[in-house]
Amino acid sequence: MEYVHGGDIYGIAGPVLDFSANINPLGMPVEIKQALISSIDGWKHYPDPFCRQLIRAIAQKEDCQPEQIICGNGAADLIFRLVLAKRPTTAMVLAPTFAEYEQALKMVDCKIKHYDLNPYSYFSLDDTFLNELQGIEMLFLCQPNNPTGELISPDLMKRILTVCQQREILLVVDECFLEFVEHVKRYEMISYLDYNNLFILKAFTKLYALAGLRLGYGISSNRALLEQMLLCGQPWSVSTPAQIAGIAALSLTGFPQQTRQYVKQQREYLLKQLTDLQYKVWSPQANYILFYSHHLELQQQLKQFQILIRDCSNYRGLEAGYYRIAVRSEQENRQLMTVLKQIEKE
Amino acid sequence: MEYVHGGDIYGIAGPVLDFSANINPLGMPVEIKQALISSIDGWKHYPDPFCRQLIRAIAQKEDCQPEQIICGNGAADLIFRLVLAKRPTTAMVLAPTFAEYEQALKMVDCKIKHYDLNPYSYFSLDDTFLNELQGIEMLFLCQPNNPTGELISPDLMKRILTVCQQREILLVVDECFLEFVEHVKRYEMISYLDYNNLFILKAFTKLYALAGLRLGYGISSNRALLEQMLLCGQPWSVSTPAQIAGIAALSLTGFPQQTRQYVKQQREYLLKQLTDLQYKVWSPQANYILFYSHHLELQQQLKQFQILIRDCSNYRGLEAGYYRIAVRSEQENRQLMTVLKQIEKE
Repeated sequence: MEYVHGGDIYGIAGPVLDFSANINPLGMPVEIKQALISSIDGWKHYPDPFCRQLIRAIAQKEDCQPEQIICGNGAADLIFRLVLAKRPTTAMVLAPTFAEYEQALKMVDCKIKHYDLNPYSYFSLDDTFLNELQGIEMLFLCQPNNPTGELISPDLMKRILTVCQQREILLVVDECFLEFVEHVKRYEMISYLDYNNLFILKAFTKLYALAGLRLGYGISSNRALLEQMLLCGQPWSVSTPAQIAGIAALSLTGFPQQTRQYVKQQREYLLKQLTDLQYKVWSPQANYILFYSHHLELQQQLKQFQILIRDCSNYRGLEAGYYRIAVRSEQENRQLMTVLKQIEKE
Repeated sequence: MEYVHGGDIYGIAGPVLDFSANINPLGMPVEIKQALISSIDGWKHYPDPFCRQLIRAIAQKEDCQPEQIICGNGAADLIFRLVLAKRPTTAMVLAPTFAEYEQALKMVDCKIKHYDLNPYSYFSLDDTFLNELQGIEMLFLCQPNNPTGELISPDLMKRILTVCQQREILLVVDECFLEFVEHVKRYEMISYLDYNNLFILKAFTKLYALAGLRLGYGISSNRALLEQMLLCGQPWSVSTPAQIAGIAALSLTGFPQQTRQYVKQQREYLLKQLTDLQYKVWSPQANYILFYSHHLELQQQLKQFQILIRDCSNYRGLEAGYYRIAVRSEQENRQLMTVLKQIEKE
């Protein structure tokens, strides 16, 4: 298996500064750690296969019914279950975007249509996209998109959803990074939950720095789809520590807002610095930044400083020279920029 | 989704004595808990998608090559991946046996042949089974079988493997409970690893009481099959705490033997007591006991005492009156028997 993502800190000896995975720079809240440690004696039991307490907490947060929620071993688990449950013969993904949609679709021998985003139009979607929504059964959109950080406007998203409904296309909106975005409420699709063809994907992984624990969830009013997803895998996919961590996370009311403020401030610092280095940057809205540099060996050179960034040349629609970095802590961001400036001077 | 297994302690209010899930009565070793707690700061990172350190430790324990090992989010995760990777059109399972084989096979619309075990022959397999191995692409055997606790003789297993090889049948031997069995080495299939059609399934879940953490692994010399399994799901299915726990577990050399001794002693106590109650028992070899009682409300009655046992009436090949209990600690086993005797007296 070829690994095509960031975050593989285990292949390098010694301490690593990892800008290749998009984890909250504030780290895992101490309240979650405490909840984990104090629950450890219960981990010998099988996890709750129905995630009852966690789902009740999510339903309260999202203001929806528990029956509209499904939990997974990370959002990625749900992507695969979704594709197995739906088994589309034809589906559409954007290019570039998160690679696991295509990976999952390939598993069921689905024919994949790629919609190529244009770097000269900020990799953004416009109205012409609506004409493309034909001859497909499933559409994956990532809001904001990964790795570009671009948002689809709420108005266009609404029209996409309506067209998808008319044409019986299952629309999957991946909001895994949306909580990092300012004015998050404007973009959330939860208010369209009465659309039976909508599946919203969310994660705890990134916002609460639970990537190692794996926890994601999906929301849809299509109960038959959720039931089918439950059958497309084992009953105990969400571990007990993941459920405990999720419940603890949802009791932290101030953390998402605190994160957004911090990320915004640090993102602006990084954007300015990257622009000063003559790198091309777009207008990222979340906790990661895509940039382009003529310097094609940047990832390898940074590795020598024990710094990992995401080389994006293996994304469809991108090429050598595209890189993605996470927004990290002030000190870490400064460290990265110091090294980058040093490399560029040489 | 209907839940057909034991171990669902979350549907009952208050403390529960759970005999319905087959977890090591010695519980999670304290060394594993310590390893977990001291690693918690690293859980914010994505898990190692290749489980490098864990796989090296397993390879050392099993005396095989790291390339022959695949790890999963519990053994159940690997059952589903295996079926997705192989996509058999026809497969065979025993009846009764663990329900997830059939659940996974149904997901790929596989035609399932059931081989019905006979309660009057101890639910055991004999040579006549070899004649049945036709017109199938995949065979699941559970060694010892769950819920019966019956073992297939090493000689018969060898012959089954040979016939399967001749007929190009993928043989999956589920050894998830084998470490609880005396003379475990006699039964382990690892020495037949050169058979390309063999897949051995193992778990940490039961022996090390990591059920809530989810950790299983598979061994096969069929590297193409393992590669395909890796593609049939997300890259981060094994959480960081599961990997940490597995590595810590494998450093505990005395624990499996200590477990076997304890379980044997307690199993014999329970067998004698159940026989005294006129229940029909078979010859269980692992950490669980199947019994039959004319008392058809036993599970419900025990629930009133906050005791869970596994009602086995929903297993194909069994009926109302069949129950499975785990072998637990001396004190808990005595508690169960006290309540059972009280119920039977009424």
